[in-house]
Amino acid sequence: RFGIGYLENRGAAATATTNGVSDTVIVSRFRVSIDGDATTDGGVRFSARVRIQADETAANGNAGAAGLNAARFSVEYEGLRVDVGNVAGAIDNLPGYYGYETGLEGMQTQYSGADYGFTGYSSTGGTHNGVYARYAVGDFAVAASYDQATGGSATATNGDRWDIHGAYTFGNITAALAYGETDTTVSQDMTVFTLGGTWGAFGGTLFVGDETVNNAAGAYDASVSDTFYGLSATYDISSATTIGFAYGDGSGTGDTQNVGIGVKHDLGGGVSLRGGVGNAKTSGVSTTRADFGAQFNF
Amino acid sequence: RFGIGYLENRGAAATATTNGVSDTVIVSRFRVSIDGDATTDGGVRFSARVRIQADETAANGNAGAAGLNAARFSVEYEGLRVDVGNVAGAIDNLPGYYGYETGLEGMQTQYSGADYGFTGYSSTGGTHNGVYARYAVGDFAVAASYDQATGGSATATNGDRWDIHGAYTFGNITAALAYGETDTTVSQDMTVFTLGGTWGAFGGTLFVGDETVNNAAGAYDASVSDTFYGLSATYDISSATTIGFAYGDGSGTGDTQNVGIGVKHDLGGGVSLRGGVGNAKTSGVSTTRADFGAQFNF
Amino acid sequence: RFGIGYLENRGAAATATTNGVSDTVIVSRFRVSIDGDATTDGGVRFSARVRIQADETAANGNAGAAGLNAARFSVEYEGLRVDVGNVAGAIDNLPGYYGYETGLEGMQTQYSGADYGFTGYSSTGGTHNGVYARYAVGDFAVAASYDQATGGSATATNGDRWDIHGAYTFGNITAALAYGETDTTVSQDMTVFTLGGTWGAFGGTLFVGDETVNNAAGAYDASVSDTFYGLSATYDISSATTIGFAYGDGSGTGDTQNVGIGVKHDLGGGVSLRGGVGNAKTSGVSTTRADFGAQFNF
Repeated sequence: RFGIGYLENRGAAATATTNGVSDTVIVSRFRVSIDGDATTDGGVRFSARVRIQADETAANGNAGAAGLNAARFSVEYEGLRVDVGNVAGAIDNLPGYYGYETGLEGMQTQYSGADYGFTGYSSTGGTHNGVYARYAVGDFAVAASYDQATGGSATATNGDRWDIHGAYTFGNITAALAYGETDTTVSQDMTVFTLGGTWGAFGGTLFVGDETVNNAAGAYDASVSDTFYGLSATYDISSATTIGFAYGDGSGTGDTQNVGIGVKHDLGGGVSLRGGVGNAKTSGVSTTRADFGAQFNF
Repeated sequence: RFGIGYLENRGAAATATTNGVSDTVIVSRFRVSIDGDATTDGGVRFSARVRIQADETAANGNAGAAGLNAARFSVEYEGLRVDVGNVAGAIDNLPGYYGYETGLEGMQTQYSGADYGFTGYSSTGGTHNGVYARYAVGDFAVAASYDQATGGSATATNGDRWDIHGAYTFGNITAALAYGETDTTVSQDMTVFTLGGTWGAFGGTLFVGDETVNNAAGAYDASVSDTFYGLSATYDISSATTIGFAYGDGSGTGDTQNVGIGVKHDLGGGVSLRGGVGNAKTSGVSTTRADFGAQFNF
Repeated sequence: RFGIGYLENRGAAATATTNGVSDTVIVSRFRVSIDGDATTDGGVRFSARVRIQADETAANGNAGAAGLNAARFSVEYEGLRVDVGNVAGAIDNLPGYYGYETGLEGMQTQYSGADYGFTGYSSTGGTHNGVYARYAVGDFAVAASYDQATGGSATATNGDRWDIHGAYTFGNITAALAYGETDTTVSQDMTVFTLGGTWGAFGGTLFVGDETVNNAAGAYDASVSDTFYGLSATYDISSATTIGFAYGDGSGTGDTQNVGIGVKHDLGGGVSLRGGVGNAKTSGVSTTRADFGAQFNF
């Protein structure tokens, strides 16, 4: 995908140079997944993935070199799936967590008020070595993940981190609940509930949760903890064109509020034009951001 | 491609070690391009490329690890092509700019006297995030490119850099003219004209231009600026064997003069043997260089 | 491949952190080789390879980013093969050198007492730029390799390093002899003899040799030099299950003794379960190590 991205005050960190960095830069992402799989005589499927990804450097708009990420290994048998390595955890895989993200780059989201650092798939570089298991039977699915949280604050470099979720689908509506916890020096946790559905051309997601998060020093951070909530929706105005909306916020004074709208127009052959405009507000400072471009799959 | 490369005084920087580095080392390049494309229902073609490349380390002859470069994205529709990201600019794409380059590694060239740093495709690592557009109609083609020049001298880290070219083909001859400019603290520019043609087994290119280039401190550098010129030619002595010649120089005292000859013998199946020998002279210091090896495509 | 690995005192280097690193971590390896080849009209085959590999970080169990290694180029014509670049040398390619290695990760080996650093294929990062040639005729094969040894001790950064081997196969038994030498400040060398065979479900390898090795300061290291020896064997207890054994030691007080057993169970489709348990003892300090997991090819 590639296009034009506008970010207010993008070059703030570079103002000491003779010529500043333009607020508007070319944004791009190139992503190739290398997948392999093998199936045993008993029907157990083993697979593995690494990804090659290249992005622009957001700070100055230069094109970054492509890089490889860490590998993920999966074993699947009927409704059970176990991932090992660079896994996405039970919150990262929660139905309805991400909802609609605006524009080409997913600039504004319903989850902007959520600050807990759960186990997520990393598309760039090395990462945790976790385990994720999911079991689906009929309309019901449960999942759990575990890894050792590393880095982060100065006072806690290794701690257990685990997530669980359950999801239930009734007709065109899916409800899902997740809980995650990191047992470093001061324990952090997140509870999140999502409710998503589709009604013909309209689709929407409600998102609400509660979290306890530490600051960089490892102490409880009241400014971003407590309740967070969001809402996103999409509407197909024709067979090729979809408009969308996302809103996210939290109860804390340091939570980031996001409001944005976006549009996607399908050109066929796996190519779509996408754009969006929106605003992010943190501690009273607003930043406008817009983008437009093409995304294609191959 | 791989082979043997001889470079006079290769190990100069390593003489403090017990055993010096041999002037003759094994040279190699491994290059794989990962390409993807998608075409819309309206016939617009979108494509993207990243490249994996491994080279020997020229200074000591060790084999370097392969690396990924930054991505290039292209949109093509009839005679129009627009590239975004890690693009080759209008001078890099100028017909006749490179001419014949000697040996396995392209050691001696007609453009050795040209010092202006135009927007070029980078096969290794991160780079500029530019735009290149080319429009061809019949025998005529025009192209332009733009990016923000970064790095370079201490006094100018961000400036506009743009190139344009026009090319006209009449029968077996192509004439092309290009102009490029970098608007950093002290403006730099290059004008270059090429005239290339083929007459049966013989092919040749004339290359002449003028440039204004800065030194590392960002001031005008008279020793490499002003006129540069070159000449290269190839002759097919049989259906499988081609010999070639390249000469390049400039009017400045700091310009590098190149003189070299090379030979290429085709073995079929995409494999060829290539070799060359030549001399580079900068500010009165001559360095002899030779190589021989095999190149194959897969 | 992936699984569980237990290493006694794995987190020794990390004990200063609040939470130690578990002795048991998830181990994994993802490996994709990118191969290309071209064949001339005369039947000479040219090929090249780079490898993408991702491993866990052994020290703390995190998942490492995948990386590219240096390229290897090969030319083959009838019984002759010449490799250039990131080559495996004549000892690395010696029949019977590695024998059976226990478990998922090849934890215990028959060659644990051998300390000489021969020219080996590097799956990660940049490396030597060597040459390896092998010629096979009937039951007999000879091979030689050469590269410049770099790095290592402070007093010798560049020196010639070469290996030779000869192998003879009579029926179900292969005998092989190799000699390698590194001509840095104080010359190092290795002589090794292997005798391997298969008798129905049983296979085994005898391994014995002599070496002169330097310590990090470049002086002769008596604690690991002199004789080394080992033995490994495998037995197929059913069509899908194989058990194995490896023992290695050396005459020096600093040589590492390895004893281990392993089992491999084939699940079909290129997938196998592998596990092992064993012990390593160096200078009187024993470390127990075990692993279990799945390996699959795609």
